[in-house]
Amino acid sequence: MATVVLAYSGGLDTSVILKYLIEEEKHDVHSVYVDVGQPADDLDEIKRKSAMCGAAGFHYCDKKEEVVREYAFPTLLWDAKYESVYLMGTSIARPVIAKACLEVARKVGARIFAHGATGKGNDQCRFQLTAEALDPGIQILAPWRTAKYRAQFPGREEMIAYANHHGIPIKATKAKPYSSDENCLHISYEAGVLENPELDGVPVVDFTMVTLPEKAPDQSEQVTIAFEDGIPYAVNGENLSPYNLVMKLNAIAGRHGVGILDMVENRFVGMKSRGVYEAPGMTSLYVAHRALEQLTMDRDLMHLRDRLAPEVAELVYYGFWYCRKMDTLLAFIKEASKRVTGEVTLKLYKGNATPVSRKSPYSLYSEAIATMERGDSFNQDDSTGFLRIQGLPLRVQSATAGWSAHLGQ
Amino acid sequence: MATVVLAYSGGLDTSVILKYLIEEEKHDVHSVYVDVGQPADDLDEIKRKSAMCGAAGFHYCDKKEEVVREYAFPTLLWDAKYESVYLMGTSIARPVIAKACLEVARKVGARIFAHGATGKGNDQCRFQLTAEALDPGIQILAPWRTAKYRAQFPGREEMIAYANHHGIPIKATKAKPYSSDENCLHISYEAGVLENPELDGVPVVDFTMVTLPEKAPDQSEQVTIAFEDGIPYAVNGENLSPYNLVMKLNAIAGRHGVGILDMVENRFVGMKSRGVYEAPGMTSLYVAHRALEQLTMDRDLMHLRDRLAPEVAELVYYGFWYCRKMDTLLAFIKEASKRVTGEVTLKLYKGNATPVSRKSPYSLYSEAIATMERGDSFNQDDSTGFLRIQGLPLRVQSATAGWSAHLGQ
Amino acid sequence: MATVVLAYSGGLDTSVILKYLIEEEKHDVHSVYVDVGQPADDLDEIKRKSAMCGAAGFHYCDKKEEVVREYAFPTLLWDAKYESVYLMGTSIARPVIAKACLEVARKVGARIFAHGATGKGNDQCRFQLTAEALDPGIQILAPWRTAKYRAQFPGREEMIAYANHHGIPIKATKAKPYSSDENCLHISYEAGVLENPELDGVPVVDFTMVTLPEKAPDQSEQVTIAFEDGIPYAVNGENLSPYNLVMKLNAIAGRHGVGILDMVENRFVGMKSRGVYEAPGMTSLYVAHRALEQLTMDRDLMHLRDRLAPEVAELVYYGFWYCRKMDTLLAFIKEASKRVTGEVTLKLYKGNATPVSRKSPYSLYSEAIATMERGDSFNQDDSTGFLRIQGLPLRVQSATAGWSAHLGQ
Amino acid sequence: MATVVLAYSGGLDTSVILKYLIEEEKHDVHSVYVDVGQPADDLDEIKRKSAMCGAAGFHYCDKKEEVVREYAFPTLLWDAKYESVYLMGTSIARPVIAKACLEVARKVGARIFAHGATGKGNDQCRFQLTAEALDPGIQILAPWRTAKYRAQFPGREEMIAYANHHGIPIKATKAKPYSSDENCLHISYEAGVLENPELDGVPVVDFTMVTLPEKAPDQSEQVTIAFEDGIPYAVNGENLSPYNLVMKLNAIAGRHGVGILDMVENRFVGMKSRGVYEAPGMTSLYVAHRALEQLTMDRDLMHLRDRLAPEVAELVYYGFWYCRKMDTLLAFIKEASKRVTGEVTLKLYKGNATPVSRKSPYSLYSEAIATMERGDSFNQDDSTGFLRIQGLPLRVQSATAGWSAHLGQ
Repeated sequence: MATVVLAYSGGLDTSVILKYLIEEEKHDVHSVYVDVGQPADDLDEIKRKSAMCGAAGFHYCDKKEEVVREYAFPTLLWDAKYESVYLMGTSIARPVIAKACLEVARKVGARIFAHGATGKGNDQCRFQLTAEALDPGIQILAPWRTAKYRAQFPGREEMIAYANHHGIPIKATKAKPYSSDENCLHISYEAGVLENPELDGVPVVDFTMVTLPEKAPDQSEQVTIAFEDGIPYAVNGENLSPYNLVMKLNAIAGRHGVGILDMVENRFVGMKSRGVYEAPGMTSLYVAHRALEQLTMDRDLMHLRDRLAPEVAELVYYGFWYCRKMDTLLAFIKEASKRVTGEVTLKLYKGNATPVSRKSPYSLYSEAIATMERGDSFNQDDSTGFLRIQGLPLRVQSATAGWSAHLGQ
Repeated sequence: MATVVLAYSGGLDTSVILKYLIEEEKHDVHSVYVDVGQPADDLDEIKRKSAMCGAAGFHYCDKKEEVVREYAFPTLLWDAKYESVYLMGTSIARPVIAKACLEVARKVGARIFAHGATGKGNDQCRFQLTAEALDPGIQILAPWRTAKYRAQFPGREEMIAYANHHGIPIKATKAKPYSSDENCLHISYEAGVLENPELDGVPVVDFTMVTLPEKAPDQSEQVTIAFEDGIPYAVNGENLSPYNLVMKLNAIAGRHGVGILDMVENRFVGMKSRGVYEAPGMTSLYVAHRALEQLTMDRDLMHLRDRLAPEVAELVYYGFWYCRKMDTLLAFIKEASKRVTGEVTLKLYKGNATPVSRKSPYSLYSEAIATMERGDSFNQDDSTGFLRIQGLPLRVQSATAGWSAHLGQ
Repeated sequence: MATVVLAYSGGLDTSVILKYLIEEEKHDVHSVYVDVGQPADDLDEIKRKSAMCGAAGFHYCDKKEEVVREYAFPTLLWDAKYESVYLMGTSIARPVIAKACLEVARKVGARIFAHGATGKGNDQCRFQLTAEALDPGIQILAPWRTAKYRAQFPGREEMIAYANHHGIPIKATKAKPYSSDENCLHISYEAGVLENPELDGVPVVDFTMVTLPEKAPDQSEQVTIAFEDGIPYAVNGENLSPYNLVMKLNAIAGRHGVGILDMVENRFVGMKSRGVYEAPGMTSLYVAHRALEQLTMDRDLMHLRDRLAPEVAELVYYGFWYCRKMDTLLAFIKEASKRVTGEVTLKLYKGNATPVSRKSPYSLYSEAIATMERGDSFNQDDSTGFLRIQGLPLRVQSATAGWSAHLGQ
Repeated sequence: MATVVLAYSGGLDTSVILKYLIEEEKHDVHSVYVDVGQPADDLDEIKRKSAMCGAAGFHYCDKKEEVVREYAFPTLLWDAKYESVYLMGTSIARPVIAKACLEVARKVGARIFAHGATGKGNDQCRFQLTAEALDPGIQILAPWRTAKYRAQFPGREEMIAYANHHGIPIKATKAKPYSSDENCLHISYEAGVLENPELDGVPVVDFTMVTLPEKAPDQSEQVTIAFEDGIPYAVNGENLSPYNLVMKLNAIAGRHGVGILDMVENRFVGMKSRGVYEAPGMTSLYVAHRALEQLTMDRDLMHLRDRLAPEVAELVYYGFWYCRKMDTLLAFIKEASKRVTGEVTLKLYKGNATPVSRKSPYSLYSEAIATMERGDSFNQDDSTGFLRIQGLPLRVQSATAGWSAHLGQ
């Protein structure tokens, strides 16, 4: 009988796994509920359910602030979006969940970390890679990756039957035609009817955080976000903790329809899949953060950062939060974000979040230099030399490159 | 007396330069009007004005199709946006204007190419670098980069006085508090009141192509765009030439408020500046094109493309359309775009352009593989080996990397 | 009874596998001998041995020219070296071997491709990824990755016993304290005593192509290599086929001790391993090719190519010769290599290969521009404007960047 | 009369400029001699010469340790080589020279920084960009970029005549057919007869640090270098300061012919030029450092570092030591180099420097994992799943990619 920690949500899937590991595998299982801002309607009930399944212990880990501060904000600083659009709200939360489970494992002496992620998705990767990095001797137990478990539970009905058989209470929710994952950063929707890419995903989904643009107020709203060294710390003049700041922006931007996304993306395990997302707060932060960088970050540094951002997104999405490459990229962005300090005001209106004002004590924008008006501090004669030298390689290679053929004749 | 070609728009600035080059510099000047889809209300009047200034010839060059087909579409294929947001409508048009001027220069035997761009902006770079690449012996004449010209015309009043003095007709337009540049791809706005980054640029600007989201219809509209090898060729089932396709989308997306942008950006000559843009058609194309790529482009190729896109944007924005690096990057994207073929339907609504459906005969999305349902063609057991091997370097370096310190205790 | 193609070398390992697949797995096995320039002392004997094992057929595939022309030369054009040093002679040969086996599979109707690579190395990756790309329905049979096979053959002795038992002739070679792989591009050495990174690998290895620098002639030798569009085609004025060109250079550079390498590298399956290599011909080609590029390739293109080269090396080394990313990178390098045409003379001396002369009809080097002598065609005044503009962002951000603190005080 | 600091070497060029700035420009000039390890035969004489020219002050700045510690070693950690080969010994020394001059400028109240670099080379860029970054208000005075100065001194004879006329002593050295620049890191040779790329540069140059391979001892020598976090700190067991360590290695590696380079390179001001270099100590350090990284640095981090290295080389070579991008890249490499700690032994023999042994307390190389022997700790079965998943995108896109056409038929 081995001691196991199980990442436990209280839902049907992980409850069945909890029971299964105890009953069929004869493990001593501690269920770990990691709070990353998902709406746990009733924590007491979850705890009770864990006990009813026979868990050796129930562990509540509050990681709401940590997930935002230590994972979401560095990702924001990188302006990292998976495949240029997805803000990775699920990807970001996985390492902290795995970490919390390992912390409990240390306490209870478990050397096995079980989770309910399937063998086809990204979450198994993020859980496992985090766990192997943080505790290389840990054993991963992913029942869905065993033929035995898949044979026993070929579908949802078998799980319900199993739960009923073992007296595990199931919430009588109306089954949705897709699955979802929620935390304070976003909600994701996938599978089911969404697997058809010709179908518009937005009308199908029952969004929680975001009011559809069509139903959003006719009146726009402005919101001002303050940043220090790239990190947001205040909304409309009110200093807020990372978690509270994101929640506040979820509310404000959510009511204006901001942050819905519908895409086909590439999983780490190689196939394309389709996802619909809502992330109002983080979407606003990305827009505001870039607007502030436009004012405060050096051009060539920003261009390099932008070239590396897809690679950071890849690491986050695939699950490599803990690796030496990521350590190094985090040192990069910490330095790069120095003096990305100031305030940006966004206008929110029916799905749009647009910067309307930006200011910074470290602004690199200089009206005196940029102005097209007279009396400026830029000597236009300099451009002649600048361009003659920029053009030198072009002039030299023009003949061999054959560009003049473009001139016709 | 040298023969000169002048990029001529018919406006005050280039008319004054035209006259100046003739009168003060004693040049034989051919004015070249390059049609890239800007709204030349009255081409005859422009021609007449050119003659009144004393131009040795007036040359109309229709580059409307070429600018879209040869410059805008390859940029679209790269998904290139300057500093992640700007679609570079002005940057894209400059090489074709320079090229047209050089074509005229060949015909009339001119060895000097004059233009009215200032010494502080990006356009001088694009004109000159294109010209030096295509015709390395050409001489560039940029009056604004000479102290003499700047001294004679310190402001707009002096230009108006000079025009009046020489009987050059000036359109009695109400002066706008900013300057603008227009072609079929977009309209840009900068300078004047826009130089203050704390000011919201959108209400200030008098947009032409786009109806403000607030004034756009309450009813959304769908539009279907068809692509072959990445190149858009039909809208709502109607095959269109490149120029007509963009114009069509300007109309459709424009009425729904799509494609407004307000940003601070970094010029090639080193300073930050502020720009406001409207580009409804191209914005729609970018959204649709990416949605199709999501379905048809390989993950690792797309990730590489996305890492290179900022670099392509840099080349386009700075003016290096003709350089060996760009030649090579164009060969790259041509190969990468093979089989990015299919149709995407967008929903347009008050500033939002969102993909609602995508399909392709070469789709790499496979419901049979991606599905979370049973009976699939993906063996979940494979993920165990996959992740053990992905995790190997993490396990090995865990001790020396010190990540376990994150687990606290 | 399934029909199988087996990549067959005629050595102990693949002979045992051949017999095993026939005897134990009851397969109908065709052995495929792919000639990539390895020294097959006696092809008839190999063929006879295949028959003695009971192979359904023996197929000789001459890929000597193809491996150089289609795989090694494009890699050379990329200047791709794995982890900056290794020329990947083994990696390059694997796709062509897999491809040859699949060609035979088509002929004989086999749907299974067997190989003798272990589950710990890179070769299995290159074989399998090539095969799955070229023929996605093919089944891979890698006996070493089955517990059953590993149990039956825990070591070399058991294989010898099995061979003896089945009357398979074994060459009575003195066992070397390491293993090796050979083709016309290089010979690699690994495993055995070489697994200790504190041990000098060079004295341990019995090199074939290269004379040790210490034993090389005291007299240096010069060799001239001619290239067209990056592709080498002549040595010392003699036009040669790709294979013959490399073999010629192996002989010339090999006798001067050129091309030995001893390194610790990272395998695709995640661990570090140690390899010793000899590649005299290809090493010379890399040196000569870069020297010619220095003369003929544009700076900014070369810098981009150099930033991408490690990524190409990764693809080649890992085994992704056939993937859309590689297709695209091959289109890139084909365009980039245009006009890398000319001749380079190398001096070879006791391990050194150094360029002593380079010339090209498309040289971008211009003595008239580069010269520090008077009367040149470069206006030094231009540098003032050039540098003032390059310095502008530095001047603007100097205060906030805090660099002046470096000045002390 | 303005106060000026002049980067002063004591040679003919800067002595003439010193006199010229005093006599013709009526400046109050302080000469600054920055010691970066060049062989100043007679510092007293240089000081006397400065006084004879009429300098307002002579300032000796010892930057020997700083140039190695603060500039050369970070460049080494990046493994940065300009255009893949050049170790940038001159580029690295320029920022510290400019910095020293600005430090003197602060002391003496100068607001003008003069230097003797031409308008065609890279050094003007490095001096000026460093100076503008560190002290944005400083004025650069580069006499060679003024038509007046060039007219007065069209050649060396005029400078000699000017020196004689003003009683400035000139060392009666036999003129060499090229120019050179020397510091503790390397000596560079360019111009003159070296401007012909068809000519072998090595026999022409009179090397100082390096014995030609042909004349090096017949007996090889081993040297052991110890590193901590990437920084070398000991040679053959003896702890040495950065400067002394490099000098020690110059002596040891130099006598074995290590570190000669002959190349055509691309200047920042756009033209190709030809350089010959000798850098025995730094060359050895690069080889040893990489050998240690092979043992201690994570694969994916190393691959990323290698992709960025050409970009770092560009910054160093062009002169952007002080810019936000470089600040950030230095933070990157500091993190990346953690635990690149250990010892490497090199064998030096007639131009070759090859690692013969490497060890580290933080080695990531594990014989237990890498071994091809039985009883290992790697489960080969994992590779099957690993490769099936790696191959998934290839299998899916095989049909549309058309690779099977490579199979013929």
